[in-house]
Amino acid sequence: MTSIDMNSDMGESFGRWRLGDDEALLTVVSSANIACGFHAGDPSVMRRTLANAAANGVAVGAHVAYRDLAGFGRRYVDETPDELTADVMYQLAALEGMARAAGTHVSYVKPHGALYNRIVADEAQAGAVVEAIRGIDPELGILTLPGSAVGRIAETAGLRVFHEAFADRAYTPEGTLVSRRLPGAVISDPVVVAERVSRMVLDGTVVAIDGTVVPIAADSVCVHGDSPAAVTMARAIRERLIADGVTVRAFTAA
Amino acid sequence: MTSIDMNSDMGESFGRWRLGDDEALLTVVSSANIACGFHAGDPSVMRRTLANAAANGVAVGAHVAYRDLAGFGRRYVDETPDELTADVMYQLAALEGMARAAGTHVSYVKPHGALYNRIVADEAQAGAVVEAIRGIDPELGILTLPGSAVGRIAETAGLRVFHEAFADRAYTPEGTLVSRRLPGAVISDPVVVAERVSRMVLDGTVVAIDGTVVPIAADSVCVHGDSPAAVTMARAIRERLIADGVTVRAFTAA
Amino acid sequence: MTSIDMNSDMGESFGRWRLGDDEALLTVVSSANIACGFHAGDPSVMRRTLANAAANGVAVGAHVAYRDLAGFGRRYVDETPDELTADVMYQLAALEGMARAAGTHVSYVKPHGALYNRIVADEAQAGAVVEAIRGIDPELGILTLPGSAVGRIAETAGLRVFHEAFADRAYTPEGTLVSRRLPGAVISDPVVVAERVSRMVLDGTVVAIDGTVVPIAADSVCVHGDSPAAVTMARAIRERLIADGVTVRAFTAA
Amino acid sequence: MTSIDMNSDMGESFGRWRLGDDEALLTVVSSANIACGFHAGDPSVMRRTLANAAANGVAVGAHVAYRDLAGFGRRYVDETPDELTADVMYQLAALEGMARAAGTHVSYVKPHGALYNRIVADEAQAGAVVEAIRGIDPELGILTLPGSAVGRIAETAGLRVFHEAFADRAYTPEGTLVSRRLPGAVISDPVVVAERVSRMVLDGTVVAIDGTVVPIAADSVCVHGDSPAAVTMARAIRERLIADGVTVRAFTAA
Repeated sequence: MTSIDMNSDMGESFGRWRLGDDEALLTVVSSANIACGFHAGDPSVMRRTLANAAANGVAVGAHVAYRDLAGFGRRYVDETPDELTADVMYQLAALEGMARAAGTHVSYVKPHGALYNRIVADEAQAGAVVEAIRGIDPELGILTLPGSAVGRIAETAGLRVFHEAFADRAYTPEGTLVSRRLPGAVISDPVVVAERVSRMVLDGTVVAIDGTVVPIAADSVCVHGDSPAAVTMARAIRERLIADGVTVRAFTAA
Repeated sequence: MTSIDMNSDMGESFGRWRLGDDEALLTVVSSANIACGFHAGDPSVMRRTLANAAANGVAVGAHVAYRDLAGFGRRYVDETPDELTADVMYQLAALEGMARAAGTHVSYVKPHGALYNRIVADEAQAGAVVEAIRGIDPELGILTLPGSAVGRIAETAGLRVFHEAFADRAYTPEGTLVSRRLPGAVISDPVVVAERVSRMVLDGTVVAIDGTVVPIAADSVCVHGDSPAAVTMARAIRERLIADGVTVRAFTAA
Repeated sequence: MTSIDMNSDMGESFGRWRLGDDEALLTVVSSANIACGFHAGDPSVMRRTLANAAANGVAVGAHVAYRDLAGFGRRYVDETPDELTADVMYQLAALEGMARAAGTHVSYVKPHGALYNRIVADEAQAGAVVEAIRGIDPELGILTLPGSAVGRIAETAGLRVFHEAFADRAYTPEGTLVSRRLPGAVISDPVVVAERVSRMVLDGTVVAIDGTVVPIAADSVCVHGDSPAAVTMARAIRERLIADGVTVRAFTAA
Repeated sequence: MTSIDMNSDMGESFGRWRLGDDEALLTVVSSANIACGFHAGDPSVMRRTLANAAANGVAVGAHVAYRDLAGFGRRYVDETPDELTADVMYQLAALEGMARAAGTHVSYVKPHGALYNRIVADEAQAGAVVEAIRGIDPELGILTLPGSAVGRIAETAGLRVFHEAFADRAYTPEGTLVSRRLPGAVISDPVVVAERVSRMVLDGTVVAIDGTVVPIAADSVCVHGDSPAAVTMARAIRERLIADGVTVRAFTAA
């Protein structure tokens, strides 16, 4: 029987500020990328989100980021590899300990925002993230794009590497994401998106922006949750997958 | 054979700013209260301090604090118990994970500054700290003053409670600390201080500020390390203890 | 012709996080209490809010707070008077300079959250806030509750003092606010609230929670803006006032 | 009569952490680059530093930086131009208002650390800094390297541009700084450094690292103050200049 993971960012509230409908989303996805306090997520938010993830049987990933609350971790920060390793270790360890206290555990790491993008190519920072994960828990997986520097380095270091596809993004004929700055980069129709995700899972292909069919291999599909429309789309994807006989299950559950 | 622990605050640098001569102090004390990032100590400092503590065989305590970098954790912050529990869990978990990565482990918690003082009497906040420790690791000890609210609540909750005395502080006839605002509250002569500490350990007494002899029972003696004079005093205490046949050993080592 | 000011908190977004419908509210109120970066409001938010306030002809107040982003300034922080004076000067100066760049100016100070409440009675901290205002701009007014310590000290220091009433809060027979913890403390019906505000302005009285009529003298009425319902209520108040022949005008406009 | 300015970074303490001997340095230099809270300098430190600068008749510059306390502003942060403009306006306005309260005023801007280096070449960020200065106070000067992007853009925008030389740094035959990573990049002998500065001022030349003599035109010489040796060197430079008949005077004093 075929299965796929759905992952989404969560726990991105901070203090008085609320972001995303985590409670709804936790009934839809199978993996939660939980913010660790550096781009979002204070300790109270982390604790609540971990408890909710545990209650819903959703796998927990550490959504580690640059120290940049004001920029929500979306701005590249030119940290040295040593600084970055320590920053990632701190976030990861904090989430791990709080996860155990909530009766669950961290099973993977998904870097956030500018860090996620940076280590697709920057080998020094990619290596720093891998070193942090190995230091804290070498059993953890890492979730990244196919072909990324961090994926290669993690694999060499003996970490488990998982790849994700993006539910609502257009792909190039080369199988990479179409830049958000180009027209058609983001797909907003839930029916179309659900159809594409189903095809990715069952057929291992996606129709690129130029109409060609390209192979795609993903352990997880990333969905958004920061708006009511996003939750609606996540539900549409899940329902379509189930209707097509696909089990939605954490990639770390195997 | 008699033994006593010497504890000191460490890892209180932050980014560009240096504080204390941790390297020297780690050759003197047996327990290091390591800052966890909320009042001092960034992840790089924590990592380095943990590695140095491990290399010197010094026991590690989590020096948890209010979230108050600008005030160095010396200002009371009116957090709700739930906020405080989450904040302490986060700090404690971060240090624990990083300690394991450095080949050591956290063996106790010593709250810092305003939090340390607050939970001597504030039962709601004391309970919040105890709940955090139990959530993260119920095997941890807590280091506090004799007679404190946090000590009572921790004991009831099944945590190990340890008491500390202060090497360079004058005591009242009731066995409490003389307020820093009063003359004679702080003793600066290393010979006198070393003599007092030796008496505390070997005789279980201290000469109070009015000349009376009062009983004192301590698992650890707190020494300072934030100035060259402080390191000199710490060394004088250690040498005197050893000369008097006392072993300096972590209270958590038993 | 009778006039009254309506004030509301604004610019309380931070980075990725949005709070309140400032654009809508700026068409309703006459004074905007703009966050200065310590409890909410980053420089980009401040700049945008100031430009919008200027475009709508709304008076600008500095909504100064304790340095407590994680607690949204709602937690008392035990700052020394000197620290508090410097913190308030910094926030006030930042907003003033940015206001001039936006073609407007700061005309008053309204302390936020825990600071607002604290200096109703704490004379040391109240004096620290007054000293900050005098240092930066002695022409500024301060907006507070009738009978507050900060009001008395500001008056003695030669500052202009303005008083506010709360549109949706119940009053005691003594003319103070009913604690939020008691039933009936907050009134949610826009028609009732608008009626009460109109009576405050035209009659100088409010019906207390026990039914007695108590005098109330306010330069401004505080309304909320952090939910769609709050904006609806603010509009209802404004419309009722205008229907009753009252001009809604900044208290600093005279 | 010939004159030159000596500038130095100041007010870089933060909370409990001390950095630099500002009191000594303020008796040596003529211009103080004062940190504004984003890389260093809390409001209490700023207030104290401004009062000391005023008491010593030292000109005040705003040492604006990226929002990066943990990295001391030494790490590039990929802010959008709009974010950067707002961040610089905020810092500049805060220092200006506090300077007036201290009986002095800000007369120039010197970007700090990674921002200083970035806008030597990055035109988008350079333009953002220039826009911030123009918004807050178009009378302010900007202190930068000869030939920088920010210098060109500031000049076009009608700002006054001043250039600085570095007292203790080696120069290339092209008149640029030798990279710190190369041997000989930093000169530590106070006598040699004082001699070089005197030659820069009186002769308009410097001996490059390869022995060639290159022209150099500076309105100010940058000296360090973050160690006792640095203060000694600053004094040696000042004394040599005075012995050679040069007046040490703020470049903004003309």
